[in-house]
Amino acid sequence: MTLTGHSLIAGQPVVGNGKTAHGFNPATNERLEPAYTLVTEGQLKAATAAAAAAYASFSTLDPGTHAGFLEAIADNIEALGEELIIRAGQESGLPAARLQGERSRTTGQLRLFAGVVRQGDFRGVRIDPALPERMPMPRVDIRQRQIPLGPVAVFGASNFPLAFSTAGGDTASALAAGCPVVFKAHNAHPGTGELVGQAIVKAVKDFGLHPGVFSLVYGPGSSIGQALVADPAIKAVGFTGSQSAGIALMRTAAARPEPIPVYAEMSSLNPVFVFPGALNGSAEQIDVLAQRYVAAVTGSSGQLCTSPGLLFAPAGEAGDKLAAAVGRAVSACAGQTMLTEGIAASWTSGADALAAAGNVSVLGKGTPGATENAPAPTIFGTGIGDFIDNHVLHAEIFGAASLVIRYSTADELIEATQRMEGQLTASLQLAEEDYPTAARLVPALEQKVGRIIVNGWPTGVEVGHAMVHGGPFPATSDARTTSVGTLAINRFLRPVAYQNLPPELLPAPLQDTNPWRLNRRIDGSVESSDATETAEVTA
Amino acid sequence: MTLTGHSLIAGQPVVGNGKTAHGFNPATNERLEPAYTLVTEGQLKAATAAAAAAYASFSTLDPGTHAGFLEAIADNIEALGEELIIRAGQESGLPAARLQGERSRTTGQLRLFAGVVRQGDFRGVRIDPALPERMPMPRVDIRQRQIPLGPVAVFGASNFPLAFSTAGGDTASALAAGCPVVFKAHNAHPGTGELVGQAIVKAVKDFGLHPGVFSLVYGPGSSIGQALVADPAIKAVGFTGSQSAGIALMRTAAARPEPIPVYAEMSSLNPVFVFPGALNGSAEQIDVLAQRYVAAVTGSSGQLCTSPGLLFAPAGEAGDKLAAAVGRAVSACAGQTMLTEGIAASWTSGADALAAAGNVSVLGKGTPGATENAPAPTIFGTGIGDFIDNHVLHAEIFGAASLVIRYSTADELIEATQRMEGQLTASLQLAEEDYPTAARLVPALEQKVGRIIVNGWPTGVEVGHAMVHGGPFPATSDARTTSVGTLAINRFLRPVAYQNLPPELLPAPLQDTNPWRLNRRIDGSVESSDATETAEVTA
Repeated sequence: MTLTGHSLIAGQPVVGNGKTAHGFNPATNERLEPAYTLVTEGQLKAATAAAAAAYASFSTLDPGTHAGFLEAIADNIEALGEELIIRAGQESGLPAARLQGERSRTTGQLRLFAGVVRQGDFRGVRIDPALPERMPMPRVDIRQRQIPLGPVAVFGASNFPLAFSTAGGDTASALAAGCPVVFKAHNAHPGTGELVGQAIVKAVKDFGLHPGVFSLVYGPGSSIGQALVADPAIKAVGFTGSQSAGIALMRTAAARPEPIPVYAEMSSLNPVFVFPGALNGSAEQIDVLAQRYVAAVTGSSGQLCTSPGLLFAPAGEAGDKLAAAVGRAVSACAGQTMLTEGIAASWTSGADALAAAGNVSVLGKGTPGATENAPAPTIFGTGIGDFIDNHVLHAEIFGAASLVIRYSTADELIEATQRMEGQLTASLQLAEEDYPTAARLVPALEQKVGRIIVNGWPTGVEVGHAMVHGGPFPATSDARTTSVGTLAINRFLRPVAYQNLPPELLPAPLQDTNPWRLNRRIDGSVESSDATETAEVTA
Repeated sequence: MTLTGHSLIAGQPVVGNGKTAHGFNPATNERLEPAYTLVTEGQLKAATAAAAAAYASFSTLDPGTHAGFLEAIADNIEALGEELIIRAGQESGLPAARLQGERSRTTGQLRLFAGVVRQGDFRGVRIDPALPERMPMPRVDIRQRQIPLGPVAVFGASNFPLAFSTAGGDTASALAAGCPVVFKAHNAHPGTGELVGQAIVKAVKDFGLHPGVFSLVYGPGSSIGQALVADPAIKAVGFTGSQSAGIALMRTAAARPEPIPVYAEMSSLNPVFVFPGALNGSAEQIDVLAQRYVAAVTGSSGQLCTSPGLLFAPAGEAGDKLAAAVGRAVSACAGQTMLTEGIAASWTSGADALAAAGNVSVLGKGTPGATENAPAPTIFGTGIGDFIDNHVLHAEIFGAASLVIRYSTADELIEATQRMEGQLTASLQLAEEDYPTAARLVPALEQKVGRIIVNGWPTGVEVGHAMVHGGPFPATSDARTTSVGTLAINRFLRPVAYQNLPPELLPAPLQDTNPWRLNRRIDGSVESSDATETAEVTA
C-alpha cells in the first residue's frame, strides 16, 4: 500500500496545511520517507464535524453490521501483511516477532469486541414495568439503556504502535461502544499509523458507514492534540503516554465549557514483592527468579507500561543471593534499541538521577547495544527506609532500569505501599508459608493498584473479560475503568431512561419484542435473552 | 431526641471550635434553637481520618450484615416519628404531607439498596479461568471484582432535607457500595440533619461497625466543604445543589494531587414539548394539560430539580388556548414558603431578569403567600426564535416560575434542543399522530438529557432500577451516572483484577465456592448463582 503522507479525514486523504514531519528509525537515527503533512486547527474541525455527523447512524447500528465492521478492520490489518511489520519495525526499533505478537493482540481485541457487540450486555438494559395498581401511587413504565457518549478523541502510545495505537484498545472499545473516533496519529510511527488507518477506512467504506466514523490526523500534540480535546464535538478522550502529556489533556478537558472524561494511562512502577518463602529453594531456583525478573525489566527494552520498576527483596542471606543473581543476570544483557532518541535520552537522565540519589548502588549493568539509542540495562539497589523517605526513588524510569529494595518486615512493605502513588500492578512472589503475610499486604495493594499478580510477572497483559489495566492516579486519570479488556467499553457509555414511551418511539434494545435478543434486567433481576421469546416484559 | 447542636464525628458529639449558626424558619424568618457549633479544619480531619480507618472493615462486610445495617438506618429514621417531620417542616417550610412522602422515599431507597447489597451484582465479578493448554501461550486465571472507592464526602440538598440529605440517595448508595461517609450538614436544616445523623450513628453502634463509617459535620461550605473535598482521605464526592457550588467543588477535586470523581447534580430546565396532537381534544382537555403543567411548576414551591422550567407550545389557535389556560391556572395559585430567605431572593432576581428580557411577556401571575418568602408563582411567554437567540432565557429560575415558548416547526424544536445545555429530563406531550415528529426529536434529546418522558411530568422521580436522574453537564458533573436508583451505587466502585491468586488469598466474592452466592461472568457469560453449587469455575 502506498503511503501518502497525509491525514485521512472522513475517508479522504487531506494534505495538511501546517508543517511537515518525518518518522525516524531509532536504530540508525535516520529519517524515514514520506514526509507527513500536519493539519491546522481549521482542518481538524473537518474531522470532528464529520465525527459528530456520523454519530446518529453509527450509534444506532444493528449489532450484526456493527460487529462485522470491527471484524473487517481486523481482517484488513492482517491483509496489510509484512509491509505493516516492516514499517512498524523501522519506526519503533521493535523486533518483528514482538510486532507480530502485537498485531495478533490488535486483531484479537477487535474480534473480542465484535463478540461483545453481538452479545450486547454492554447496552445495560433495565426495565421496571408499570405497576398501575401500586399504592399509594401507581408506577409508570421506565426503561434504561446505555448510549454511546459521542465522538471520541484517541491518542496512541509510542510503545505499542499497533495494539495501543490507531486501531488499538481505545479505538476498538470506542468503536464497539458506537462512538466515532478521531485519532491523533503518534509522531513516532506515522507510517504505521497511516497503514492501519487505511485498513479502518476501507472497512468503513465496505460497510457503507458514514465516513466520519473514523479520521486520522497528523499534527503536534501540544497544539492539534490540545485543540482536539477542546473541540466541543468531542465527548471523551482515550490516551496512553507520559504523565505530563496526560495531565495536560486532563486539564484541558476539565476547563472546557462542557468538561468531558479523559481516560489516560500514564505511568507505573509495577512493584514486585518477593517474600521469604519464594527464596527457600535451591540456589538454582533463586537464579531462575532473578532471570525472570531481569527478563521482565529488559523485555521490549523495558518500554512496557507494566515493566517492574521496583523489586522488594528480603534482608538476609537468601535476599543477598537474589540481589547477586539479579546483578549477574542484568550484567549479561545487551541494550536494545529504544523507541525514539528522545525516549532514550529520558531513560539516561532518569537512570542518572537514580544513580545520584543517596544510598543507591548499582547491582548490575549490562552493555549498550550495537545500534543507536540502546543504552545498557541497569538495576539499582537501596534499602526500604531510603525508599520510604526519598520521593526521587519513586520516579518512573521508562526503559530497562529497575530498583531492588531490601526490607525486613511486613510492616515496612505496608508502609512503602502506602507511600507509593497509584500503580497499574503489584506482583507477589511467594510460597504457602507467606500467605499470612501476603494477606496483610493485599488490602493495602488494592488501594494502590488495578491488578494483583501472584507468582507471575506483570508484563504480558491478557486481553479478556476479567483484565484490569488501570489503577489509581497517576497510573491512570480514572481508576473506575480499564483500558484493556472488555470492561473498557463502559468508558464510552452513559445511561438514558425512557419513561412511558409508546412502542413506536422505543429504541430497539428496549422494545418488548427484544429484537436484539439482549439479556435484560427486569425489576432488578437479569432475565436471559432465552426467555424473551415467550415473555412480554410488560405483561 | 435531644438536639445537641454539635457535629457527630465517629459516633461522638463534638463541640465545634468555630463560629455558631442557627437554622431559620423561612415562613417567619425566625431563628431556630439550638445554635450549631461549626467545626474547624482540624476537627474535620478527625472525621476523615476515622472514615479512612473504617474502610478496611466496612468495605469487606458480609452482605447480610451490610444490608441489615442499611435497613436499621431506615428503621431508626422511622422511629424518630413526628419529631423529624415537625423539625424538617420548621426548617424548610415544606408541608408535612410532602415531608412524610419524602421520608418514605428515604427509607424506601435505603431498603432498596439493602436488596442490592444482598443480591450482589454490583460487585461485578468476572472470572476468566486459566487455560493451561492454550496455544501459543497458556492463559492464567484472572478474576475481577468492583471494590469501594474509599471514604465519600456527601453534601445534602436544601430542597430534599430527607431524601437528598443526611441519609439520602448519595449517602445510601455510598454506604451500600461499602464506602464510609463524611456528611457535610446543610446549613438550611441543621436540626433535621442531626436527627437523621443520630439515626445513622445508632445503626453503626448497634451493628458493631467501626464508628468512622459515618460522621456529620457542621461548617461553612466555602471553607469546611472545600477542605472536605480537598482532604486526601476522601476518594469521591456526592453533591446536590447550585451550579456555582457544584462547579467550585469540581475544580477543587480536579486540582488535588490525586484528582477524585465528583458527582454533582446541579441544575435543569426540564423542557416540556407539547405536540399538536396533544391539543386536538376538547377545551377541557387543554385545561387539564395546563393545570397539570402549572401543578408541576408550583408543587413544592417549584423547588424540585425536575420542575419544568420550559414548555414548548405550538403556534396557532390550540396553542393560544393552552397559553391562556396556563395563564388562568397560575393566576389562581398562591405562593408557598420557599426553603430559605436567600433562595426566595434568588427566585425574585431570576424572575425579574426574565421579565426584563426582550420579547418576554407574563402569561399569568398568582398571588404571594401569607407567609414570608412566598413569592407569587409566575409563568412567562416568548417565541422560539427569541429562545434560540437569547441565552438569558436559558437560565434556571429555582422556584415557581416557567417559560412558555411558542414554536411552528419540528426543526425549530430540534434547533432549540441543540442550543440547550444538558438537562435532567425532557417531556413530550403527544398523541399517536405526533409519533413521526417525536421520533425526529428523541435522538436530539438523548444528547441533552438523562430521562425522556412521554405524556407525563418530570416531577416525582421513581426510585427503582431503571431510573436515571442525571444528564450532560451542567445538569450534572458526570453524565455517566445517575444519583437516583440502584445504578447510583456504581459511582462509588472501581475494578481490581486478581491474577493467579491461591484460594487462601482470594476475596470472598471471587472464591470458587462462591460463598456469597453471586451471579458471576465466566469467560464473558453471566452464570447465575444457582449454578454455583454444582460447578467449580476452575474445573
